[in-house]
Amino acid sequence: MVGIQRLVLDVLKPHRPSMMDLAKQLSELKGVTGVNLSLYEVDQETENIKITIEGNDLDYKKVEVIIEELGAVIHSVDGVAAGSKLVEEVETPQDK
Amino acid sequence: MVGIQRLVLDVLKPHRPSMMDLAKQLSELKGVTGVNLSLYEVDQETENIKITIEGNDLDYKKVEVIIEELGAVIHSVDGVAAGSKLVEEVETPQDK
Amino acid sequence: MVGIQRLVLDVLKPHRPSMMDLAKQLSELKGVTGVNLSLYEVDQETENIKITIEGNDLDYKKVEVIIEELGAVIHSVDGVAAGSKLVEEVETPQDK
Amino acid sequence: MVGIQRLVLDVLKPHRPSMMDLAKQLSELKGVTGVNLSLYEVDQETENIKITIEGNDLDYKKVEVIIEELGAVIHSVDGVAAGSKLVEEVETPQDK
Amino acid sequence: MVGIQRLVLDVLKPHRPSMMDLAKQLSELKGVTGVNLSLYEVDQETENIKITIEGNDLDYKKVEVIIEELGAVIHSVDGVAAGSKLVEEVETPQDK
Amino acid sequence: MVGIQRLVLDVLKPHRPSMMDLAKQLSELKGVTGVNLSLYEVDQETENIKITIEGNDLDYKKVEVIIEELGAVIHSVDGVAAGSKLVEEVETPQDK
Amino acid sequence: MVGIQRLVLDVLKPHRPSMMDLAKQLSELKGVTGVNLSLYEVDQETENIKITIEGNDLDYKKVEVIIEELGAVIHSVDGVAAGSKLVEEVETPQDK
Repeated sequence: MVGIQRLVLDVLKPHRPSMMDLAKQLSELKGVTGVNLSLYEVDQETENIKITIEGNDLDYKKVEVIIEELGAVIHSVDGVAAGSKLVEEVETPQDK
Repeated sequence: MVGIQRLVLDVLKPHRPSMMDLAKQLSELKGVTGVNLSLYEVDQETENIKITIEGNDLDYKKVEVIIEELGAVIHSVDGVAAGSKLVEEVETPQDK
Repeated sequence: MVGIQRLVLDVLKPHRPSMMDLAKQLSELKGVTGVNLSLYEVDQETENIKITIEGNDLDYKKVEVIIEELGAVIHSVDGVAAGSKLVEEVETPQDK
Repeated sequence: MVGIQRLVLDVLKPHRPSMMDLAKQLSELKGVTGVNLSLYEVDQETENIKITIEGNDLDYKKVEVIIEELGAVIHSVDGVAAGSKLVEEVETPQDK
Repeated sequence: MVGIQRLVLDVLKPHRPSMMDLAKQLSELKGVTGVNLSLYEVDQETENIKITIEGNDLDYKKVEVIIEELGAVIHSVDGVAAGSKLVEEVETPQDK
Repeated sequence: MVGIQRLVLDVLKPHRPSMMDLAKQLSELKGVTGVNLSLYEVDQETENIKITIEGNDLDYKKVEVIIEELGAVIHSVDGVAAGSKLVEEVETPQDK
Repeated sequence: MVGIQRLVLDVLKPHRPSMMDLAKQLSELKGVTGVNLSLYEVDQETENIKITIEGNDLDYKKVEVIIEELGAVIHSVDGVAAGSKLVEEVETPQDK
């Protein structure tokens, strides 16, 4: 059992700290092998970003703590992968 | 004979338990090598998610039991793959 | 000569038996290495599915028997591949 | 010199013989390694299909004989590849 | 120095000789490893085709002679690759 | 810990110095393995470019210094990847 | 340090010399491993082409000299890659 292997999060953050600081802090969490942050929308006070975290036996609670300590908030969990093999979403005719 | 290798399910769940809890429980089922959950729509009380489960000789009934014990319901089975080789859907001119 | 290597079928089936049962029965046919079923449309009494079957020297008649014994009907054969090498459809400017 | 390696044909055929029979006969031709047939349009009496044939030193005349003996007709040759290396069509800005 | 490795040509040809004959003649030219011909448009007297030729140190003049001897004409050269490495066109934001 | 592995930046620069000069200077920064610059829009005085920088333990501050010393300005950080594995953004149904 | 590895140029040239001549001359420049030229638009006197040049430590000035000596002109530099690793442009949500 390797638990959660990937989390995809929709996050609202203030401009400071920067995406670089948030990326580095998340990448140092136990079990995390890599993170990707991308910018969706920028407002006067905030920015909406998407965070993809990959690793072994990821601990969502610790991810949430880091994000909230930096003054950001998780809007929604958009994707989760778990198990010994990283499974991708499969498109079916119902998605078209 | 390896039976069912992939199930793609359209599921309606309450907000609690979380997608992480559901992903972990499904990934611990016998024969499951990995699961992917992705969020389609969020309502006030529920969320519509898509679940892709891969493994060997998957037991649909046991998958259904876990999903229903967590208060969720399977709307439809959108895809199934079975056999010794994982076959993907092939696009033909009839799909265009 | 390995005969037919792939069949892509447009099938109308009643809700019961399930796609899982149909997938398992087809995957146990002689020569079949794997099957993929995906859901196109659901009606009150029936569901329209697409079946992709891969293997060596596939016997269309036996596939048809299994499908019809389960109360389903083949609407059309949308794709066939035969020979020692699995050839994919090649797009040309005439398809655009 | 390996001659023609691929033919892509636009063919009109009666419903009988089936696409399976046509695929098998073409796959048994000398030099053919594999064939792919896909359904484009179905009419009351006929069906319009696309045939992709791959192999070494393919003989177009023999392909045409098989197709016509089964009561079908080649509408157009949509693609041809020849030589020792299978070259794909390259998209340029002129195609956009 | 390997000179020209790929030519993409827009060609207008009469219906006879066939695309198969043209493909075979071009594939036998010195330095040519493979050719791909695809049909763009058919008129009463002519057909517009796209020819992709790959090889080492291709001689455009000899290609042109073969094409013109068969009664066809090169409308435009749509792509050329030269050098020791086959370089593909790279898309930039200016192409979108 | 390898820190930041990729930065994607939206930059406004004067026409001089050239994209080549900027690319070379960035590629010589400690930890940088490669950079890609692409042109988005050109105005009379300025050009809007996108810069992708890859490497190990990238130092955003040093990147910013080089860019600003050349008279350019970073409009926004559009993407960041950090950790020992380079993670790509994963598309979910929320992006469609 | 390998300097510039790729240049993508938007070029306006007279019909003569041909794209083949320009491709060959550029491919013989020091450091160049391969070039790709593709045709965008044709006018009565000129043609607009896109040139992709790949190699090690490319010298933009020498590229420019060759292009101008043939009577052509560089409209814009649309892409540049530099460093020891060839980095591709990464798409972010800001590009959609």
